[in-house]
Amino acid sequence: MSSEVDVSPAAPEDDRTRRMLTVTVWGEYVHERQMENVRAIYPRGMHETIAAGLRTHLDGRVTVRTATLQEPEHGLTEDVLAGTDVLSWWGHAAHDQVSDEVVERVLRHVLAGMGLLVLHSGHESKIFRRLMGTTCSLRWREAAEREVVWTVNPAHPIAAGVPEAFIIPHQEMYGELFDIPQPDELVFISSFAGGEVFRSGCCFARGRGRIFYFSPGHETYPVYERAEVQRVLANAVLWAYNPGRRAKPPRSVNSPMGWFERLNGAG
Amino acid sequence: MSSEVDVSPAAPEDDRTRRMLTVTVWGEYVHERQMENVRAIYPRGMHETIAAGLRTHLDGRVTVRTATLQEPEHGLTEDVLAGTDVLSWWGHAAHDQVSDEVVERVLRHVLAGMGLLVLHSGHESKIFRRLMGTTCSLRWREAAEREVVWTVNPAHPIAAGVPEAFIIPHQEMYGELFDIPQPDELVFISSFAGGEVFRSGCCFARGRGRIFYFSPGHETYPVYERAEVQRVLANAVLWAYNPGRRAKPPRSVNSPMGWFERLNGAG
Amino acid sequence: MSSEVDVSPAAPEDDRTRRMLTVTVWGEYVHERQMENVRAIYPRGMHETIAAGLRTHLDGRVTVRTATLQEPEHGLTEDVLAGTDVLSWWGHAAHDQVSDEVVERVLRHVLAGMGLLVLHSGHESKIFRRLMGTTCSLRWREAAEREVVWTVNPAHPIAAGVPEAFIIPHQEMYGELFDIPQPDELVFISSFAGGEVFRSGCCFARGRGRIFYFSPGHETYPVYERAEVQRVLANAVLWAYNPGRRAKPPRSVNSPMGWFERLNGAG
Amino acid sequence: MSSEVDVSPAAPEDDRTRRMLTVTVWGEYVHERQMENVRAIYPRGMHETIAAGLRTHLDGRVTVRTATLQEPEHGLTEDVLAGTDVLSWWGHAAHDQVSDEVVERVLRHVLAGMGLLVLHSGHESKIFRRLMGTTCSLRWREAAEREVVWTVNPAHPIAAGVPEAFIIPHQEMYGELFDIPQPDELVFISSFAGGEVFRSGCCFARGRGRIFYFSPGHETYPVYERAEVQRVLANAVLWAYNPGRRAKPPRSVNSPMGWFERLNGAG
Repeated sequence: MSSEVDVSPAAPEDDRTRRMLTVTVWGEYVHERQMENVRAIYPRGMHETIAAGLRTHLDGRVTVRTATLQEPEHGLTEDVLAGTDVLSWWGHAAHDQVSDEVVERVLRHVLAGMGLLVLHSGHESKIFRRLMGTTCSLRWREAAEREVVWTVNPAHPIAAGVPEAFIIPHQEMYGELFDIPQPDELVFISSFAGGEVFRSGCCFARGRGRIFYFSPGHETYPVYERAEVQRVLANAVLWAYNPGRRAKPPRSVNSPMGWFERLNGAG
Repeated sequence: MSSEVDVSPAAPEDDRTRRMLTVTVWGEYVHERQMENVRAIYPRGMHETIAAGLRTHLDGRVTVRTATLQEPEHGLTEDVLAGTDVLSWWGHAAHDQVSDEVVERVLRHVLAGMGLLVLHSGHESKIFRRLMGTTCSLRWREAAEREVVWTVNPAHPIAAGVPEAFIIPHQEMYGELFDIPQPDELVFISSFAGGEVFRSGCCFARGRGRIFYFSPGHETYPVYERAEVQRVLANAVLWAYNPGRRAKPPRSVNSPMGWFERLNGAG
Repeated sequence: MSSEVDVSPAAPEDDRTRRMLTVTVWGEYVHERQMENVRAIYPRGMHETIAAGLRTHLDGRVTVRTATLQEPEHGLTEDVLAGTDVLSWWGHAAHDQVSDEVVERVLRHVLAGMGLLVLHSGHESKIFRRLMGTTCSLRWREAAEREVVWTVNPAHPIAAGVPEAFIIPHQEMYGELFDIPQPDELVFISSFAGGEVFRSGCCFARGRGRIFYFSPGHETYPVYERAEVQRVLANAVLWAYNPGRRAKPPRSVNSPMGWFERLNGAG
Repeated sequence: MSSEVDVSPAAPEDDRTRRMLTVTVWGEYVHERQMENVRAIYPRGMHETIAAGLRTHLDGRVTVRTATLQEPEHGLTEDVLAGTDVLSWWGHAAHDQVSDEVVERVLRHVLAGMGLLVLHSGHESKIFRRLMGTTCSLRWREAAEREVVWTVNPAHPIAAGVPEAFIIPHQEMYGELFDIPQPDELVFISSFAGGEVFRSGCCFARGRGRIFYFSPGHETYPVYERAEVQRVLANAVLWAYNPGRRAKPPRSVNSPMGWFERLNGAG
């Protein structure tokens, strides 16, 4: 009988609040190579634009690298994930080409404490559906509509420096019902010109991991160039980082009477 | 392009608040057949004891039937689930013998609005882990300890008629960390003689379905005979019933401008 | 030293799920008497229209009475409140004419378990601000705009029988930031023609009381005549009723070791 | 008609994540002066011990000052509060001696974005009850019992570096029902030797302010000397800081059509 007391020493305070974070920006990178109009907006791929925004807003706080579907293991090897503090995920056309093995690997790291940002059409990615347990379906329409993003939780760090409302002139409509669990914290709600609403900024904790879903961002509109969107994503990286990450998710453990008395002093 | 407007007429008020509900109590029914000490407590199986408690507390409100692992399709055919308002689930030794096909079928019905009660060791069932997205692991110990169950949300209908605290003299210890998403509503917290705590009564909404996890209840202690436990489960059946259940979970739908204008008058 | 064990017997099951509920609909009743255009829509006062809607949708389940600001103690005496299962509140022009004594009395009953529905401009009533702890302020505009009300929690009983979206052709705009605590459950979000969004259906538990805020409903538009609005309010009455109501809110109690052992058998 | 667009420039990123924070530790400072046994543990007052713990754990990140009930305006003048990023509050014997004017001032700053930590017996302080809207009552007992504090949200920054469970050998019992709104995030649950449980670490957002309630900490036990407790409070300071603080809480504003279009570019 073993009680699996976790007595790994906590990171020192300085390390926890000041160390450089490593962010991996994952991009499906299909539309950009196949469609002229997408390539015109994102010539190096959406992932490079997203990465550049993070570098600008979090200069001196983060190291940002990218990975794509086309790389071996989609660029998400065990080593890459073990060294990633926060992963961002953009996919759309090729969700089913992501290998189940890589999805389970990402899941394991999220539950152990790696942060995850899920962007726009990533709502139907395997990894997001797996973490949410629901269909993550929604209503949609491509009509280049005006989206207005509203902050509904101004106490939240992801809203820091974000205006009360900001406009994205042309965006794909994403509307309710968005079939997700009720977020632990709801930060943004969007309206669309056609009258729909959408919970566009949603926080979830799963295991030791923190997940932020953010809907603005489409392949045929230059949404990731916008300062407000970049600010939200930069804030979300800092929010999603968990200094208490472990090597593995928890598992059920037979725990003898008094097992936790050995923990004291480990704080 | 189709907008899939759901214009199924709502159930009339009387039907929604007064109709007889159909509850299916599912039991793994392995321990009771293999272990003498379990059979002594639950001679006809735990599912029959659970079912009897519901019949007593909800007389005239529910029809209760049972199903077990050993039946074809585990007794959970499409017809049975389509006719079930609320399903309760107890499993432990044979989670991996539940067919993935049946799990996906139950999942589909829950997301479409069937209520689900997950009991005790059902925390590691395939269906609960699938719905939660986490490991659902916990700490445990079999030492016949005293459990005290505390109500922390006295406004909740599942707590109606339940004392502020009630004692289960001998129970398996279930302790934190219980690796689940933060419940939408937390109703009960338990303490154990050894000092552990556990979130023992947890409410979740997933899709159109309502899920209640309740931890008291073990195969070698006659927990399901206790009045307080029966009261909680009876309350949970009424809470988990969704009169707005649909035939299928939602899926993403391309929705033309103004699609919802056709809905009015459907209320 | 006394431990104040509450051993009041729980209501029998039949009583809890089937008894007639008493609803008191409170109306400020100022606009209707002073403004011709309001009187044209609500000749007997908004409270009478709201009451009539509840009687229609909950026939045989509720007894509905009304009370107004102008009555002695605003019609909300100790006896009236003690006999009220759910109170609904509409006020706007005369929040500051509601006596603090009556507000404290309502507060006491809510915390002890009386249900409360707060409607539209009631967001700035003394009782709602007192219960929320925040300013409950919002953005507003009177421009007879189209409001679309979206269900975002289809598992919730308040959404039962309510369409995915419904339109109110002319409504005052209420927009974010709505300065309230994050609701325990968010059921509806509205959009307005001008682009604003609003959390228009919000559930809160406070003490033993359940509170539902619903924003649609204005004095110069016949909103309370609409079937969808009446359905929401009828659902909310059933949801807000707490059969476990007590005579008084809790207070801090010195509780000797083992005090709760006396509770068993009370379940 | 004015729309009150808030276009105050956001703090630059460096300022938001790296600036020195100012913490004010408020102490009632009554027990320490009147009771020999308390003075023996906290000779300079509990506030000085709490302040020293923050200085140790957040060296280089915070400036910590103290204020007490006995000072003019309890040491909480407009200037002090305007210059305080996070306020911590410990009171017990003299809640009613805190002037209502100061309570309203603190409330105003919290709703505008000042962080607030409420400690132990501060649960019945005027400011906490005012912010929660409930009685904030609980069950208690002074029997020098063992408390075990359990982390139930390991993804939360307040739990970073805190063991899964830690023991406080002698503590006053605080037990459920704790009459508070359901926390936005529940981080810690405690058990006591007598069998009670308590939601001991609770996060709330109110307006732009973030509030953390933490129950361990009593005047006759040296709880604030413990490393785990100091770590929790240090984490809570960083969590409660809102870089998006404003000068005043929001108020309802008549907002003309399109008012928010002027906001863009302000991000």
